[in-house]
This record gives sequence, C-alpha cells and structure tokens, in this order.
Amino acid sequence: MRVDLNADAGESFGAFTMGDDAALMASVTSTSLAAGFHAGDPSVLRRSLVLAKGNRVAVGAHPGLPDLNGFGRRELHVTPDEAEDLVLYQVAAVAGVAAAEGIRLQHVKPHGALYSMAMRSPHIARAIVKAVLAFNPSLILFAPPRSELFVIGESSGLRVAAEVFADRTYENDGSLTPRSTAGALVTDANVALERVLHMLETHTVVTRNGAALDMRVDTVCIHSDTPGAGKIAFALRKGLEARGVTVAPLLSNGSSPEGA
Amino acid sequence: MRVDLNADAGESFGAFTMGDDAALMASVTSTSLAAGFHAGDPSVLRRSLVLAKGNRVAVGAHPGLPDLNGFGRRELHVTPDEAEDLVLYQVAAVAGVAAAEGIRLQHVKPHGALYSMAMRSPHIARAIVKAVLAFNPSLILFAPPRSELFVIGESSGLRVAAEVFADRTYENDGSLTPRSTAGALVTDANVALERVLHMLETHTVVTRNGAALDMRVDTVCIHSDTPGAGKIAFALRKGLEARGVTVAPLLSNGSSPEGA
Amino acid sequence: MRVDLNADAGESFGAFTMGDDAALMASVTSTSLAAGFHAGDPSVLRRSLVLAKGNRVAVGAHPGLPDLNGFGRRELHVTPDEAEDLVLYQVAAVAGVAAAEGIRLQHVKPHGALYSMAMRSPHIARAIVKAVLAFNPSLILFAPPRSELFVIGESSGLRVAAEVFADRTYENDGSLTPRSTAGALVTDANVALERVLHMLETHTVVTRNGAALDMRVDTVCIHSDTPGAGKIAFALRKGLEARGVTVAPLLSNGSSPEGA
Amino acid sequence: MRVDLNADAGESFGAFTMGDDAALMASVTSTSLAAGFHAGDPSVLRRSLVLAKGNRVAVGAHPGLPDLNGFGRRELHVTPDEAEDLVLYQVAAVAGVAAAEGIRLQHVKPHGALYSMAMRSPHIARAIVKAVLAFNPSLILFAPPRSELFVIGESSGLRVAAEVFADRTYENDGSLTPRSTAGALVTDANVALERVLHMLETHTVVTRNGAALDMRVDTVCIHSDTPGAGKIAFALRKGLEARGVTVAPLLSNGSSPEGA
Repeated sequence: MRVDLNADAGESFGAFTMGDDAALMASVTSTSLAAGFHAGDPSVLRRSLVLAKGNRVAVGAHPGLPDLNGFGRRELHVTPDEAEDLVLYQVAAVAGVAAAEGIRLQHVKPHGALYSMAMRSPHIARAIVKAVLAFNPSLILFAPPRSELFVIGESSGLRVAAEVFADRTYENDGSLTPRSTAGALVTDANVALERVLHMLETHTVVTRNGAALDMRVDTVCIHSDTPGAGKIAFALRKGLEARGVTVAPLLSNGSSPEGA
Repeated sequence: MRVDLNADAGESFGAFTMGDDAALMASVTSTSLAAGFHAGDPSVLRRSLVLAKGNRVAVGAHPGLPDLNGFGRRELHVTPDEAEDLVLYQVAAVAGVAAAEGIRLQHVKPHGALYSMAMRSPHIARAIVKAVLAFNPSLILFAPPRSELFVIGESSGLRVAAEVFADRTYENDGSLTPRSTAGALVTDANVALERVLHMLETHTVVTRNGAALDMRVDTVCIHSDTPGAGKIAFALRKGLEARGVTVAPLLSNGSSPEGA
Repeated sequence: MRVDLNADAGESFGAFTMGDDAALMASVTSTSLAAGFHAGDPSVLRRSLVLAKGNRVAVGAHPGLPDLNGFGRRELHVTPDEAEDLVLYQVAAVAGVAAAEGIRLQHVKPHGALYSMAMRSPHIARAIVKAVLAFNPSLILFAPPRSELFVIGESSGLRVAAEVFADRTYENDGSLTPRSTAGALVTDANVALERVLHMLETHTVVTRNGAALDMRVDTVCIHSDTPGAGKIAFALRKGLEARGVTVAPLLSNGSSPEGA
Repeated sequence: MRVDLNADAGESFGAFTMGDDAALMASVTSTSLAAGFHAGDPSVLRRSLVLAKGNRVAVGAHPGLPDLNGFGRRELHVTPDEAEDLVLYQVAAVAGVAAAEGIRLQHVKPHGALYSMAMRSPHIARAIVKAVLAFNPSLILFAPPRSELFVIGESSGLRVAAEVFADRTYENDGSLTPRSTAGALVTDANVALERVLHMLETHTVVTRNGAALDMRVDTVCIHSDTPGAGKIAFALRKGLEARGVTVAPLLSNGSSPEGA
C-alpha cells in the first residue's frame, strides 16, 4: 500500500500568520501553496517553497477565488472563462517561482469554494482542467473521487489523484459533511489514522450515517487549519508507516522534488 | 539604424478599462503587460497576450508595486527582499500565462514607482536583477541609460535595453522631468518623432534646459496613458520607417515572438 | 405626478475612471455613491460628494460586495451577518464623509449582485434592512417593487422607494431581463422616456413578453454604464418635465440636500 | 496622577487572526480600531466595538495606509489630499459603525507608517488634522509629543493627547528606536511599568543613550503585537493603580463610552 500525505501551506499574508507550515512540512509528502488570491503573498510563497525543498516535500499550486477576506471559502460566481484564467495565472505564478527555487511543480489543487464548485459544476471543472492542460498537461490534478472535477480531469487525459480528507467526515453522497455540522471535523489523530487505514485497506469510507462508500485514495489531506494539524500529520505519517504503508509523493518515480 | 518601440498594455482591471491596447499594439513592436499588482487581472492579461500575438508584438512582464489604487505610481517602501519576491512572482505569472499562449517572454520592465526607485536605489535595482536572474537570465531588462538599474543589470550579466521616452522631456541629470512640471509630457506626435530621430542619430538627448546628454537608445516607450498614445505610436512607427529606421523587437534574430 | 431620477456615481478607482459623473449629475435628482468595495475610493467619494452638492443632487450610499475585480456584479456567498456588517460599514463611511461636506444622506441602495441577492433572499434582505435600521432608520431604502428587500424593508418600518429602471426591460415575474439577453438594455432615450411615462401614468410596466405588470414608481434609475447614460438622463429629465412631471429628490420636503 | 492606557485592536482580517484583543481590552482604557485599510474588516470592526463596549473601553479610529500586505507599516507616498481623504473615510466608517453600537468615538490615532510620516511631515500632519476637523473637531488626536502632528494638531484647535510607548525605547531626538535595532522593544512588564512611572513622575523619558528628554504623557500605548502584550497591559494597569495612578479614558468627564 502506498499513499501521499498532503497539506496546504503558504497561507500567511504579510504580518498575518496562518498555519504551522514548519510542523506540517515535517510530516507530509506533498504541499499545495497559495498564490495570493485567497491567501499567501509573493514572499510567503517563496519562503514556503524553500521550506518544502528543505523537507523534500513535493509542491503543488493551490489556486483559489480572489477573496482574501473570505479566505476563498465563499462561493463567488465567476464565469468559466474567469475561472480558467485565474487558475492559469495562479498555477503559472507558483510554478515559475518554484522553478526559480529549482523545484518542478507536481500538482494543482483548487482551494476552498473553487474546489467545491468544481466538484459539482462541470463548467467550472472543465475550466480548471483547461487551465492545467494549457499550462502543463503533465501536472497531476487533485480531485475528490467521483466529482465532476475528477471525471472531467481523467477524461481529458490529465493524471488525477483521488484525494480524501483525514480530518473530515463524509455524507452518503460522497460529499464532505459541512463544517457547520457537529462532528464534521475529526481532530483525534488516532481516529483519523484508523479512518485512513480503513480507506486504504478496503477502498471504502464509512460515512457519517454508517454507509460504506467506494473511495479510491491516492492522497490524504490534512487541513492546515484543523486544530492540532501538525500533530495529526505527524501521527498519520508515523502510524501509516508503522502499518507498512509507503508514504511518498505522487510522482511515479517517487523521487524528491529536486530530482523531478 | 534600428530601434524597438514599446508601450505598456494589459492595464485594464475587470470592468475598469484603461488604455487603447488595440491601437497601440497595431504600431509598437514590444509590449509590457501588467500582472495584477498595480493594474491588470488574469483575464485581461490573457486577452492582452492574444492581442500581442495577433499583432506579432514581443511581450514582456511589467511588474509593479502592490498598489492598485495608486496605479503603482506612489513609492512604497518595500524591502529589497520584498521587491525581489514581488518581481519574481509577477514575471513568473506573466511568463507562465504567455507560455500557455505559445509566447516566449522577451523582457522585464519595472512599472511606475518601482522603475523610479530602481533608477536611483542600488538595493532595489539589485533586487530586481536578482529576480530576473533567478527566473530566466536570458530575459532582457528594460532600464533607463545610466540608472542604477541599468548599471547593475549589465554588470550582473543581463542583457539590458536602454529605454527612452518619446513622450517625456529630460532633466540635465538624465532623469525624466516630473509629470507635475509644465511641458513634461510631449503630446505632439511630430515633436516626439523628431526627438526620437535626434536621439537615434546623435546618441544624445536635448534636455528641458537645452543641454545635450549622451543617450543610448535600444527601445522607445510611448506611455499608454499619454493623451493620443495610439496616434503618437502610429506616427512614430511610420515616421521612423519613412526615415529608414528599422523598427523591430529586441530579440537578436528579430523573429516574431512565436518563432522565438 | 412626481418622480426621482437616480444614477450611480463615484465608481472611478484611482487612475481607473468609470462613468461620466458630471454629465449624469447635471440631470438626475439623486445619486448613489460607491464606497470602495466594488468601486470608488476615498478621494473619488469625496469629489463625488462635492459634485453632487454643486448640482443639488441628493446623495445615497451604494454598498456593494467586496469584489472590485468583478465590479460587485458577481454573487458572493456572504453570510447574512457579513452582509449586514459590510452594508453598515459602507453606509457609515459614505454618510460620515458626506456629513463632513455638509450633506445629509438621503438613501441606501445596494449595488449589483448584492441588490439581486436581496431581491430574492429574505436573509440577505433582512441583513441589509438591519444595517440601515442600526445606522439611521430615517434613511430611505431603494428596492425593486415586490422584491424581498422591498417587502421586508417596509414591514420593518423603513421608508422604501420603489425603483424602476429606465434602461432595462422586465420579465413577467417582475425581474429585470438578464443583461446577456438581447434587448435587455434600452439605449434609445425616447424609448426610455415613453417607458417611464407609461409606468408613471398607468402604474404598470409592459414586460419583454408584452404582459402588463403592476409597478409602483418612486425613483427611476439610469445605469451609469449604459452607453450614452448622460444623454439618456438629460432626455428623461427634460422629457418628464415637458410632460408636467415634477422631477425631484425623495426627501418629503423636497428640499435640496444642503437644506436637509 | 492620571493616565490613559491604550492598545490597537480589531486588526484581524477574515480568517487571519491578529492580536489578543480580549486580553488587551480587559486592561486598557482606550482602544484604536482598524478600518480595513491596513488591517480589520467590517465584521471584525463590529465585533471589536462590542468587545470594547463590554469592557467599558473608550474607542478611537485607527486609520492606516491602504497596504494590507504591509500591515500599513511601509511608507507609501500618498499626497496630502489622499492622506486627508483616506483618514476622513476611515474615521467616518469607524465612527458610524460605533454609533450603530451606541458608542461615541473618543479619538483618532493614525497607524504605523502614516503615524511616522505625520510625525515629521507637516503636509501629512496637516492633512490628518484637516480630516479630523472636517469630521468632528471634538475628537481627540493621539500624537507623539513634539511631533509635527502634535504641534499642528494643537495649533489647529484640536485636543491632542501626548502618546508614549510603554514597550519601545526612545532616541535622543525623541523618535522611537527603530524596531530593527536590538533592544528597541521592551517586553519585560516590570521594566515597562517602571519606565511609565518614571515618565509620569518626572515628565521626562530616559533615552536609549541615557539622556533625559522632556515627555508629556496623556496616554500610554501597548502595541498589540508585542509578545505578551496582554500580560504587559495587565501588569501596567495593576502596577500603575497600585502606585496611586488613576488609569482612565481621556474624555474630560471620565465617563464610560456608553455615557458619552
């Protein structure tokens, strides 16, 4: 068994700090870096890239909606063209700054409300896929299994990584339980570990209502703003490895980002 | 005699339109595209790239200070590290979106107050040069002759293009006459043409006070917000060619951007 | 017969100009000023207030969603609390700067997507009404007849002005024809005048599909970005007055804003 | 002996939290609230006002430069007119939202680089004073003793409160030791207390180089981002009161903000 462990990072903005990037980067194998639209700024991005390189963590772009005040978590009705352009721009910025630090981008993962919109809207999903294809068709797209983004990404020829959430519960339709629902967040590292192991072993997830749902797992996300995210990431990494799971980035050769 | 004719473009922002890009692109040979910090947005950038490609105009990045409300024309005391990071980010964004449109970037030209700061501050000049070197040392840097930016760019091994302004007068120290001074703007296309021809023929410029100043000229800028900029650009292009001057982009092979 | 004629203004942003405020202010009797979230900035706001005062035009606040790049025309899923807070903030800012210029605020009119959301969402409508009540319950709320905003505003004790659009057509359900539909914009000043006169005389509007719809009219809006808005406003003012309609602000004493 | 104890608050921005407002508000007697330009947003502002009211803390506006990424601490070369307009706008916004919460504004304190610029530039100082006079001449202006802002404020008829910093050292010319200099920050609460008591008793401050400088003290600031700011504020409040100093807001009747 093999899996990638990912977390968002680079979400600070000037004097406004967010997330414990150093703790997360010590345990994850991939990280998605903000590009300044919903979080992050040019200096934060660069420091995050250096941090990722030092920890041999594979890097992806984490494009979001232009809504810093809402942290990209509020739906904004952009047109598909606008979505395509803002994803392309953000992927280009992260990839270019990464290249200046000797890092080749591994993946693209839409953030927050853009990710949610792409799960259910084929128009937004297609826009994101078009942006990735236009920039670099060898980039891996992170998407939730069975989502519009997943299906359209695969059918367009992109390599798509099925992403699940260690720190969130699922509904019967495969969607994440809304954050506003009690119990939506899994903050106990042991519970998170057992959930992930169950998914890896059975290729299913147990929903909040007890149903078993097919669930392919290529990469497991720990939200950087879940309380104790650094500790959960550490526990997951150690726990998975203790159970014999190889925890590694997604690039097929499993090389470090520098060697990619 | 040979010279490049450049204008800024891509400075609209959403519903806020600025500049007559279509008119300018019909006459210039290079254009510097904003990246969203002082002007421009992801969709405007992409449309501007398509427009440049259609007009066979070479493309550069036009990084500016993060001050949309001041159009990047107010000095902001960023540190050299911040300057380096924000230039790197913007160049990366423009270069990456350009690449997705099949365009290789020709140059980098700092905008507004960042350009002015880099003329006299070796710290800011060095920061900009470091950003360009880190991203792609084959990019051409636009800089005013004799400025800190010019000197540091050349001594760092970058190819630097000496830029003069067709629509602005000069002071005896080689600086541009401040916009607030009467007569600082040259809005008569014939006067602008004669000024440029004089510079190309004599390698000197006549300052506002009548002095002759040595002035190397590789590229001539028409500010996109000078009244009648499109007409001035058209008159310059036709007038220069009528006098036997080759008007072409800076890439040594003189190829169109697609062929570069 | 009496009616107020209104237009948005103060929508420029730094060097980015938008709208012909001078032309519109010469003909309208009320104006709604942006507060910097979707358009406008502190200096533009102040100049617009001086312009309104000089033209004896009554002033309102025009709060919008925090989306400068989308000009506040893209829906953003703010919570009702966020909507209330951002309306309160913007009304406070416009009212306070207006007071410094000796102007008492007449009204509040939500902008763009916020206006649309408040037409159909009772949650957003209530949030806006709460903000106005908290700031100053004597302010007049502009709302489309029969909308949630209109109904909740009236039932909450606010004075609500029924607003119709001279330059837009209506659907059978009372909504505006979407801008993307051919014929949605009325750009012929004579057609606009006859439409408004018909509404004032019959208290009905003829929809795009020919139905007659009850339509109370207290204030008529000319969109500042409709092509030829200034001319339409002038033609409406002159045409209405030529037919004996009193065109005046909404304040019950009909006084100029300075006298309010 | 009597003194006001103040701290900045309301500096969070959406999901980006900054400062321990609850801890500071428990100990200070006045607070300066950000207005969204360098920090803060409409919802943060409103919550901060409710928190201040609950702690019977007097409220001021804390206008800053429009530079969220630089937290308003980088000089931006705004014109005096721009400075006046952006101060007026921010004071209006904070005052209006405060009024909706039943709070009368006590004071205005420029933030960060705007405060520094107003210390030495009579143009910027005059712009700020003009904005306060235009909005409400009974507001108290916070300014460092002997600064241009202080002198121009007093000579213009404003009530000016001499502000000193408990957590910063001073140079011989009365300026604050730059943050980049070792020892510029006083983070030991006992040292801060003794420094403030010395100022109150002797009307002088001992500079970093040992000189004694005349120093009037009306209000003492604890920076909200100094490490342990909440504890320093608590220690100052208790320590000052234990030595017989009355710690109270500046309003002459000493009333709570609700009673103002």
